[in-house]
Amino acid sequence: MSQTAERDPLVALRRDLHRRPEPAWREFYTTARIVEEIKRIGVDELHVGADAIAPERRSAVPDKKELDRWYAQAEDSLAEREGSDPAVLERLRGGTTGAVAVLERGEGPTIGLRVDIDALPREEADDEDHHPAAEGFRSIHDAMHACGHDAHATIGVGVLERIAESDFEGTFKLFFQPAEEVIGGGRAMAESGHLDDVDYLLAMHVGLDHPTGEIVAGIDDFLAVSHLNAEFRGESAHAGAAPNEGRNANQALATAVQNLYAIPRHADGGTRVNAGRIEGGSASNIVAEQASIQGEVRGETSELRDYMLDEAEDVIEHAAAMHDCESDVEIGPSAPSAKSDQALVDAVAAVAPDAAGVEHVVERAPLGGSEDATFLMREVQENGGLAAYVGVGTDHPGGHHTATFDVDEASLGIGVDVLADAVERIAELEPAK
Amino acid sequence: MSQTAERDPLVALRRDLHRRPEPAWREFYTTARIVEEIKRIGVDELHVGADAIAPERRSAVPDKKELDRWYAQAEDSLAEREGSDPAVLERLRGGTTGAVAVLERGEGPTIGLRVDIDALPREEADDEDHHPAAEGFRSIHDAMHACGHDAHATIGVGVLERIAESDFEGTFKLFFQPAEEVIGGGRAMAESGHLDDVDYLLAMHVGLDHPTGEIVAGIDDFLAVSHLNAEFRGESAHAGAAPNEGRNANQALATAVQNLYAIPRHADGGTRVNAGRIEGGSASNIVAEQASIQGEVRGETSELRDYMLDEAEDVIEHAAAMHDCESDVEIGPSAPSAKSDQALVDAVAAVAPDAAGVEHVVERAPLGGSEDATFLMREVQENGGLAAYVGVGTDHPGGHHTATFDVDEASLGIGVDVLADAVERIAELEPAK
Amino acid sequence: MSQTAERDPLVALRRDLHRRPEPAWREFYTTARIVEEIKRIGVDELHVGADAIAPERRSAVPDKKELDRWYAQAEDSLAEREGSDPAVLERLRGGTTGAVAVLERGEGPTIGLRVDIDALPREEADDEDHHPAAEGFRSIHDAMHACGHDAHATIGVGVLERIAESDFEGTFKLFFQPAEEVIGGGRAMAESGHLDDVDYLLAMHVGLDHPTGEIVAGIDDFLAVSHLNAEFRGESAHAGAAPNEGRNANQALATAVQNLYAIPRHADGGTRVNAGRIEGGSASNIVAEQASIQGEVRGETSELRDYMLDEAEDVIEHAAAMHDCESDVEIGPSAPSAKSDQALVDAVAAVAPDAAGVEHVVERAPLGGSEDATFLMREVQENGGLAAYVGVGTDHPGGHHTATFDVDEASLGIGVDVLADAVERIAELEPAK
Amino acid sequence: MSQTAERDPLVALRRDLHRRPEPAWREFYTTARIVEEIKRIGVDELHVGADAIAPERRSAVPDKKELDRWYAQAEDSLAEREGSDPAVLERLRGGTTGAVAVLERGEGPTIGLRVDIDALPREEADDEDHHPAAEGFRSIHDAMHACGHDAHATIGVGVLERIAESDFEGTFKLFFQPAEEVIGGGRAMAESGHLDDVDYLLAMHVGLDHPTGEIVAGIDDFLAVSHLNAEFRGESAHAGAAPNEGRNANQALATAVQNLYAIPRHADGGTRVNAGRIEGGSASNIVAEQASIQGEVRGETSELRDYMLDEAEDVIEHAAAMHDCESDVEIGPSAPSAKSDQALVDAVAAVAPDAAGVEHVVERAPLGGSEDATFLMREVQENGGLAAYVGVGTDHPGGHHTATFDVDEASLGIGVDVLADAVERIAELEPAK
Repeated sequence: MSQTAERDPLVALRRDLHRRPEPAWREFYTTARIVEEIKRIGVDELHVGADAIAPERRSAVPDKKELDRWYAQAEDSLAEREGSDPAVLERLRGGTTGAVAVLERGEGPTIGLRVDIDALPREEADDEDHHPAAEGFRSIHDAMHACGHDAHATIGVGVLERIAESDFEGTFKLFFQPAEEVIGGGRAMAESGHLDDVDYLLAMHVGLDHPTGEIVAGIDDFLAVSHLNAEFRGESAHAGAAPNEGRNANQALATAVQNLYAIPRHADGGTRVNAGRIEGGSASNIVAEQASIQGEVRGETSELRDYMLDEAEDVIEHAAAMHDCESDVEIGPSAPSAKSDQALVDAVAAVAPDAAGVEHVVERAPLGGSEDATFLMREVQENGGLAAYVGVGTDHPGGHHTATFDVDEASLGIGVDVLADAVERIAELEPAK
Repeated sequence: MSQTAERDPLVALRRDLHRRPEPAWREFYTTARIVEEIKRIGVDELHVGADAIAPERRSAVPDKKELDRWYAQAEDSLAEREGSDPAVLERLRGGTTGAVAVLERGEGPTIGLRVDIDALPREEADDEDHHPAAEGFRSIHDAMHACGHDAHATIGVGVLERIAESDFEGTFKLFFQPAEEVIGGGRAMAESGHLDDVDYLLAMHVGLDHPTGEIVAGIDDFLAVSHLNAEFRGESAHAGAAPNEGRNANQALATAVQNLYAIPRHADGGTRVNAGRIEGGSASNIVAEQASIQGEVRGETSELRDYMLDEAEDVIEHAAAMHDCESDVEIGPSAPSAKSDQALVDAVAAVAPDAAGVEHVVERAPLGGSEDATFLMREVQENGGLAAYVGVGTDHPGGHHTATFDVDEASLGIGVDVLADAVERIAELEPAK
Repeated sequence: MSQTAERDPLVALRRDLHRRPEPAWREFYTTARIVEEIKRIGVDELHVGADAIAPERRSAVPDKKELDRWYAQAEDSLAEREGSDPAVLERLRGGTTGAVAVLERGEGPTIGLRVDIDALPREEADDEDHHPAAEGFRSIHDAMHACGHDAHATIGVGVLERIAESDFEGTFKLFFQPAEEVIGGGRAMAESGHLDDVDYLLAMHVGLDHPTGEIVAGIDDFLAVSHLNAEFRGESAHAGAAPNEGRNANQALATAVQNLYAIPRHADGGTRVNAGRIEGGSASNIVAEQASIQGEVRGETSELRDYMLDEAEDVIEHAAAMHDCESDVEIGPSAPSAKSDQALVDAVAAVAPDAAGVEHVVERAPLGGSEDATFLMREVQENGGLAAYVGVGTDHPGGHHTATFDVDEASLGIGVDVLADAVERIAELEPAK
Repeated sequence: MSQTAERDPLVALRRDLHRRPEPAWREFYTTARIVEEIKRIGVDELHVGADAIAPERRSAVPDKKELDRWYAQAEDSLAEREGSDPAVLERLRGGTTGAVAVLERGEGPTIGLRVDIDALPREEADDEDHHPAAEGFRSIHDAMHACGHDAHATIGVGVLERIAESDFEGTFKLFFQPAEEVIGGGRAMAESGHLDDVDYLLAMHVGLDHPTGEIVAGIDDFLAVSHLNAEFRGESAHAGAAPNEGRNANQALATAVQNLYAIPRHADGGTRVNAGRIEGGSASNIVAEQASIQGEVRGETSELRDYMLDEAEDVIEHAAAMHDCESDVEIGPSAPSAKSDQALVDAVAAVAPDAAGVEHVVERAPLGGSEDATFLMREVQENGGLAAYVGVGTDHPGGHHTATFDVDEASLGIGVDVLADAVERIAELEPAK
């Protein structure tokens, strides 16, 4: 561990999480480590796992075998740590991850901060140019924190500690949300009941092409998104002796992929489509009897997203039928879009310039991507509260979701300061409801 | 274990092998079990693993991790068996599987029989209609004997025992060849040196749409075949925020698959192409940076196979370039075609009608598929010897390479009888060289 | 001809033009008819054909055979009209169509109005629901006014007449521009020299989903556009006897079309792609030796358009190479984007509400398509002048470019009134330069 | 005209036909010229046009406009010839082309010879290396004799003349069949009634990769074939302003073409597929509302052809549906396969070696393509007669159906001699029924 990490507990925590990235609903070690920090800080209420979320509202939960594998791995990792509490891990079993920490500090509004904690199922770069590799905290798992959620969790812990030590008056709730990358956890946390009394909610993200020292007070233009999984079922045959007896799922898949990307652009605004993960067949000399696509569609509005969904379903159905295969499309949950409320944007913009390290404050910027934080924002807004999504700039060498993504650790402290200051400033507002 | 299996050691052996199918170069348990049988029978020479093949001529050997996994599994399985010899397994480490058993019985020609022993990396059917499932010997591994090589190995053992107990005069060599399904073992065994003195060689296959009771004295029309593996390398990007920054390996793959199957038919004869196993990308919201195809091409002649190879390479190269990806094509080894020599066909046809259970003898029939036994046949033929490929009919519910393939165990004994009788009849021929 | 047409010379002119639609650079009859009207009105200067444009700056001019065919057809049509002047037609020979009419009315700024006059190469609907069919002025040519340029030319004539009869002081120039649909005429007219002294320029379009009675004072968000023509050259062969000897241009085309539509969406904004017209091969039993695509790409900015162009060229090159074909891509001219200047938007917005029939005035709206009027607008703006693009609402049953498109003739008078009033109002502005 | 042509009336006739190639059912000039020759020779019966065929059994007849265009062109061409009979042309109007000439010469069997006379809708090469271009008889029409039917018609005339001048006893019928290239005329001629009394039928083809001087006494292995035309109907839209409102027929077509060529190979034998002629859409900026494929499938047996047809229909239906388009598939007529009868093969093989110019006689060879002569052969064979298909070698620079195809005119005389000799030899056989 480098000098920086030794000196700075935030950096140390971030590196520990970075080294043990866990994808959606498998954040066993991650949640346990966060809970360890929460307990160290001391809070008035702590909800862990099934108590932090509405488990029946989870989406995209992996199968038991996969959950068990990651659970066992987390168990091993935690066994190496002194003083870790096996009871915490036990509450996460079956993929009910995440936590909600509550500080009750007298009269005043209830203010929430939501951070997400999951990693992506991809490999991390392993060359000397890649800081985590050079510094020895590259992922040791089959996954990677390629979107900065390790920094998010760390900043959450930092803000919790700052508020705990401050004169803040009111109630402060920190939401450590699992499974953002699969649009799987936002709804489950939004409907957990813990948002019911929240007057003001902030959510946050690092990077997004904003450099270290830049703060975006309010991010908008979330693309509505839906995941979709397609399954093609054909029939195998010997590829040499009986090619015509097969019903080729790989041909169905290839036809579908080509035509998914070719769904017509829409006059009403931006759309997206991705066949991100594909696989099919078993061996070179067997006609493939099965193939699958894990993909997604997005739109600048929910209508545009629905347009893409409808077209995608048509493509998949007929690509399968063309090759005499059956198909199933499973539509994942959709995250809606949301807007940052001006009063909160103003509060962030007011405090940000005074935070150490902040060089530039942008009032509003578009996301151009999707986020299931919108479930929590909408939950608060529909209850009469206000919400905003804050961008914390960080220099990142590779793009989000790529093997060389990394966060500039200098932005951890900036994020903590700006968000804690903003929470304190917002506490001066009248309760929203 | 059923009554039949209890009574009949051949059936018992076949079921044991069927239950523990091992794909190419991973036939650790399989080889060890065969060697156990060979030792029980007693032979004059026994070459195991690296001594049975030319290890440097192996093709399509899996990586160390994969080999180690199957090795460990075989170790576990053998540990359960009484009296298994750990030294045998040790000689197979690193994927040098297979065995050659030699009986020296005085003056006379040297006669070989080649059987293959590997399984396919596919799942086996699991319903009551499927005999191995109903009888409890369905595969317990991640693979399946979907082409009857469990029966081949068993028949090989049976013939060895029959010859050992007979009045046969001459030298008899039994070649238990690994890695046929990946065209990986034929050349390695052909160039092992053990074929150098073989005058007459028989190879054999069960099924091929010939029913139980039917024998094909000489099979011809082997399709020349080459495996090819294509790798596409692009660049990942966030599918929502920066779709244009990716270089999409999945799009390259889909374009390639569509166009591989669309390679023009050839006026000179039949061709085949299969993109049997495909995979690409890592998650639904990441533009895929990597994708791969495991495929193959075949042709009625080597020229036709080469035509398909050339076209396939063009398709892959330009499908990649179109999507700004790099590509590599790795061409696997090719198996040539071969002809069954008339003198041996005559010998088989002469003895077959008298074997118990044989109802019908076909003199010649086409294979319409590929086989790397052709390497061994050509080796013998080019040295001035003769070779033939014999078909042993068996009722099989599903097609070769499909989940419901199975062999009629009544054909095991028929195969042993016909082949042993043929070997004895061939021993009466003058040495070929 | 209906009562309306008899009574209203604008309606009669529009129907005459509608009945004889002529695509880009073939507006022989159309130009001659417009010139007839200009002469009837009487102007101070009249530039026809090669004098109205910079002929060497034309793009997408058809071949001589095609020009000659339409020229002969126009000759026949004009021969039926009394008093038409053969000398006018003669000046258009070779595809130098279009006209510029100039009214010089003393001191004051020079104000231009640009209208386009070409039709589309598509068939027109022929059922009773389609007004031109019901009223007997459906196209008699192999083309259709499916974008309302018949109305544009008519409104241009109407405005010229109104200004000629008014107290207008200054110079008024009416630009009847050919070949908008192929982005072929805008540059040629912009660089004709006739724009050099123009202080203020208006351009206009009917419809665009704005209903009759609605005026858009300033239209923006023109998509940058480039046409591209791809040619694939392979080699023919007998499809039955020698399929492998062909190099199939139709397969190259199909691969290209699939992948053109699948060019990744771009994070920076909207893009478009269309393979609008395709053809290839000659007969069902011949492997196609030639195929071609007439297509286009667009982008919200020129950079986005260039991104699409680059990707499209890659797709075409490698789709051809994959099938061993040669390819050529010919990039048509690109039209840039443009902005409507506020001073002119204000002028239009000021007069529009008082025009008869106007029910609603929208200050600004996006086009979401492309227009080569942007060449003329930019020419004026870069010289220090101002320009705006005005939308004249019209109820249209089918979308633009479809078989059932039609304009509500009530909008002809509205367009004339609003634009003439705007010209008079703009004349009160100081000269821009 | 060269010296050769002046000296040799067969060469002159072939060049005249070559210069005026006419595709299926448009052989107006061709039939009229042939009839002129028949009348010059003098026959006992002559059936022209609707009398020579069963008009209601014609397939793939073009529309009236197309027929009228070629008819008018033929009229013009014939007007230039002295002594041509307008009454003949009149009988062909509407696309009832072809002729049957009958010589009745006493007792003896009825022997038929069938030749086809249509050209292909493709362009001819125009460089000095191409003999017809160099010698001035290159096609002056929008078509080309790219399969040698000009030579077939010429040889037919030559044989008729030879038999007319010979001692032949029996009845000789010469069938000049139209529309072979579209599989359109074979059935119509087979069911005309003129075959009913034919004992022995010969058909013939030049070239097929057999050089000048080579004769194939019996050709076999005709591929069964079916033409199929697919029509895709979508909906047009402005490609820039409303891409999502279109239903893109060009995308449907591209998906179909890719997947047609990718129909799996069949274990039972050779298959073919070709999307020979495609077209779609109208302009670069309009989403295509219509597209079409003229294609064909073939198989070594009728079952294999039917397999291809079924798969092709599936592909087209679902490619359309995937893009929300409607589709129609029109299946053209199918030609069956046929076998050459040994007695006739023997007769040809017996006389061929003695014919001047013959250097090599092959008894049997495969066609590897399709032919609707099989309709006539089957008609005769099913009535108890015999039939054979004879190959007359000719050096041809380019492949059949390509722009540089040509016949070596030295083979015209060889063909006449061999076939006339064969007819005389066959006349010595007993009547078949």
